[in-house]
Amino acid sequence: MENWIERNRKYTLVNPESNFSIAFAGMKFTDADLLGLAPMVNRANRGIAEIEAGEIKNPDEKRKVTHFTDRLSYVGSPIYQEVEAFVEAVRIGKITGGTGKKFNAVAVNGIGGSALGPQLMQFAVNGPYWNEKSDAARNGYLKLYFLDNTDSAEFVDLLSVMDPETTLHLVISKSGGTQETKNNMIAMEKFYANKGLKFIQFAAAITMKGSELDQYSRGNHWLQVFEMAESIGGRTSETSVVGHLPAALTGVKFADFIAGARHMDQWTRKVDLLQNPAMMLAAMWYIAGKGKGNRNMVIVPYSDRLILMSRYLQQLVMESIGKERDLDGNVVNQGLNVFGNKGGTDAHAFIQQLNDGRDDFFATFIEVLKDSAKLPIAGDLTMGSYLHGFLAGLSSALLGKGRQIITVKISEVNEFNLGMLIALYERAVAVYAEFVNINAFHQPGVQSYKLAAKGILELRKDLIANAGEVNLSTALEIAQKIGRPQDAVEIGDLLDKSSFNCPMVSRTFDAKQNLWLYSIK
Amino acid sequence: MENWIERNRKYTLVNPESNFSIAFAGMKFTDADLLGLAPMVNRANRGIAEIEAGEIKNPDEKRKVTHFTDRLSYVGSPIYQEVEAFVEAVRIGKITGGTGKKFNAVAVNGIGGSALGPQLMQFAVNGPYWNEKSDAARNGYLKLYFLDNTDSAEFVDLLSVMDPETTLHLVISKSGGTQETKNNMIAMEKFYANKGLKFIQFAAAITMKGSELDQYSRGNHWLQVFEMAESIGGRTSETSVVGHLPAALTGVKFADFIAGARHMDQWTRKVDLLQNPAMMLAAMWYIAGKGKGNRNMVIVPYSDRLILMSRYLQQLVMESIGKERDLDGNVVNQGLNVFGNKGGTDAHAFIQQLNDGRDDFFATFIEVLKDSAKLPIAGDLTMGSYLHGFLAGLSSALLGKGRQIITVKISEVNEFNLGMLIALYERAVAVYAEFVNINAFHQPGVQSYKLAAKGILELRKDLIANAGEVNLSTALEIAQKIGRPQDAVEIGDLLDKSSFNCPMVSRTFDAKQNLWLYSIK
Repeated sequence: MENWIERNRKYTLVNPESNFSIAFAGMKFTDADLLGLAPMVNRANRGIAEIEAGEIKNPDEKRKVTHFTDRLSYVGSPIYQEVEAFVEAVRIGKITGGTGKKFNAVAVNGIGGSALGPQLMQFAVNGPYWNEKSDAARNGYLKLYFLDNTDSAEFVDLLSVMDPETTLHLVISKSGGTQETKNNMIAMEKFYANKGLKFIQFAAAITMKGSELDQYSRGNHWLQVFEMAESIGGRTSETSVVGHLPAALTGVKFADFIAGARHMDQWTRKVDLLQNPAMMLAAMWYIAGKGKGNRNMVIVPYSDRLILMSRYLQQLVMESIGKERDLDGNVVNQGLNVFGNKGGTDAHAFIQQLNDGRDDFFATFIEVLKDSAKLPIAGDLTMGSYLHGFLAGLSSALLGKGRQIITVKISEVNEFNLGMLIALYERAVAVYAEFVNINAFHQPGVQSYKLAAKGILELRKDLIANAGEVNLSTALEIAQKIGRPQDAVEIGDLLDKSSFNCPMVSRTFDAKQNLWLYSIK
Repeated sequence: MENWIERNRKYTLVNPESNFSIAFAGMKFTDADLLGLAPMVNRANRGIAEIEAGEIKNPDEKRKVTHFTDRLSYVGSPIYQEVEAFVEAVRIGKITGGTGKKFNAVAVNGIGGSALGPQLMQFAVNGPYWNEKSDAARNGYLKLYFLDNTDSAEFVDLLSVMDPETTLHLVISKSGGTQETKNNMIAMEKFYANKGLKFIQFAAAITMKGSELDQYSRGNHWLQVFEMAESIGGRTSETSVVGHLPAALTGVKFADFIAGARHMDQWTRKVDLLQNPAMMLAAMWYIAGKGKGNRNMVIVPYSDRLILMSRYLQQLVMESIGKERDLDGNVVNQGLNVFGNKGGTDAHAFIQQLNDGRDDFFATFIEVLKDSAKLPIAGDLTMGSYLHGFLAGLSSALLGKGRQIITVKISEVNEFNLGMLIALYERAVAVYAEFVNINAFHQPGVQSYKLAAKGILELRKDLIANAGEVNLSTALEIAQKIGRPQDAVEIGDLLDKSSFNCPMVSRTFDAKQNLWLYSIK
């Protein structure tokens, strides 16, 4: 027992000023394991220093990686001031939409990093019901909606509550070529035109200088266009203007968020493994998963406000670490699965498996020390003491079964602590990438999937152009007719979809063949 | 290629009346693999028949498992009619809260199965913005909120938008002993009392006959108490009164949902593996994961409305399958990890890893054939054709890399199809449990964790009773003082929490020892 207590003392990293701590004692490793990582730790220290010195650390895309350093000077910078001024002008109704009404909502049109970070921030800081509050309760700040897919249901759902005259449209795309974002922009432009309104008088953009979207939005005189650096990747853009503008429009104290991220950056610049929480975190991932991601990372914040944390980290970690090749070109198929939701709720869900089932994970708990309110339940037990009891009970049950856990404690859910959390994981990802010698900052798999999607749309074009009239034919017959028999399955899929959306296409099932027969008029 | 086309034909199961299909060709298996499962398929057919015949299939809890059969007679049953009558009376303002105002919101207080199912249903059928709509747009049906944790933040967040006079409180707990639910009930009772209102005049319950909650709510003359069967488990309660009442209060057509579930039940009673989609689904899980869950199940509905599907299935599958022992008492540590979000969005997140990283998963895509609206983007390409293109593109990219996928197609997101989806997975879970010889219907790990949590609360009591005044002491010193040195780590955790919530407790960091020092007045 003394040993367990000493192990906790030794492997808990504390930052007393911020009340942030992270405890690694519940992971399975020895001092020898840590010592064995020394060459990798050195390498990672060099690598992080290179990133911060502005060297090319994303060789495929030949670009620098500046999210750790840009935030050193972000607060107070011209772009920061531009955002703050814009937000205040919107809040007090100095900048309005085309019909002169004060904006009371913003629809953020962006995907991946342009949505997940702002969603996490909004839910954590303003809570789940922000959009249901009155303008006064929001202090003039805006309701916040998202378009983060190319799903007509999402678009129609937004229209069902959107007042076009009081909604600001914020289009976020670094390249401007992101198809989902472009689609929502086009659909929204058409919607505004149908209403006799000019979309350009309700629209702002965040994009890279010279991008397609930059040219388009400036050329059409949108309300304002904000520039983002080319050297900031989508999944690490939350501490840049991409995180700032949506957050500021809802009254989030973004400077505090940056301060938290910078505070963590500073802490995690320590070169000694045992004093650097990002390095230790990466070391745990490495040791637990044998450097191959052999254990899933289960993220369980004991906080309703942090429910989106696992989703955010899923993108940050998996898109960064899930790579086919290492930096030397070897096929390594790296990865690190991330999932989770919120505790104690999930103790009534997947925690059963964590307790009793496959020992193929390590859990990361995040505890929020300060309760939002003192809600007495029985004697001196409050709602918060129960939540703590469930967390501590689960930890103890899991440890008793030889399962592995990391526990993070923060004082409360606020901008500063969120900045610390995000910076911690951003840096742990960068360190882990150095450990396993991969490029954490590109996403070739996403590119290859985009290409494949393009192929499907070309096949669709081909089908429309060449199928002609068809009567009760199988997908293979139609595929043969247009000279693409090898694409019969994909053609069937296209026709399944079309039969519900194009009046010219219908289908009927042939049970004997176990195939749909398609007709095209 | 002919082979790939034929493989698709052979291994796609279609139900033409409902336009529901599920394609297994993208999984790696041979006819010989399927044949090899024959003894297990027989066993599963027997097992499911036993469940449906009302035999004891949850031996630990000595109870029957009736969710498949109760829904045969649920629609039109006395309890069904009781719910429908109650809902209509609430909707038209015949049943009101204690001050006579029409209810316009319901707060569902329940956890695990009592929350996840209703949340999934609400989001899928009524969409993300239901609570922002006017009473007229909701046709008099209620806004829907959830209390599904013991987190004071969640409670305070609800209060920030809740009108106590027009909010119906629905407490759901089979046993009545669920602590999280009890906590929210107690806190809400106090809140009402402080407002000079009587909680009992705003409250209804769903619980088992004779339970603690049954006695309490009936004894206190709550508005109404609805009975749930003991033989329905939390995670499979969505087709019972537990799913019905919250859904009906928001205008969901629950009879359609039941019809969909029954339609799937019927389809999945076929004894032939190749004609039974639940059996095939379980077979795929089994073959892909070698009967041990060696691959993660990644759920990606290409539909914003279905974003909660992965969370729902995470509970259903992991709580059911994640078991330490099989039915013969052998330690097997079974499990099947489930995670996911929504496509195409997640192609900008974790899909990078699925494409390029660890080959340790199989993906299940769910496509919705009918678009919510025709939103033209370019030429004859609509928003929906892009969504299809991304799905088909990703499938093709993944298959090209030897990854495994299952594709489900449904016509649209509605009650009927949701019923089919849920029943499909409920039955696949029951089949898989037969394959691997486990009890899918208990949750001993949750019980053991509850016990551990109780231990923490007792430790807390001990600490309060015996610590006395303490000045700048370590957790170990305090632990020794109360005669529980072995609990020093847990005591430190308790004091960390208390130092933010109890004025008598404070802490200060001793950097030299790397320990917090606590003071208790």
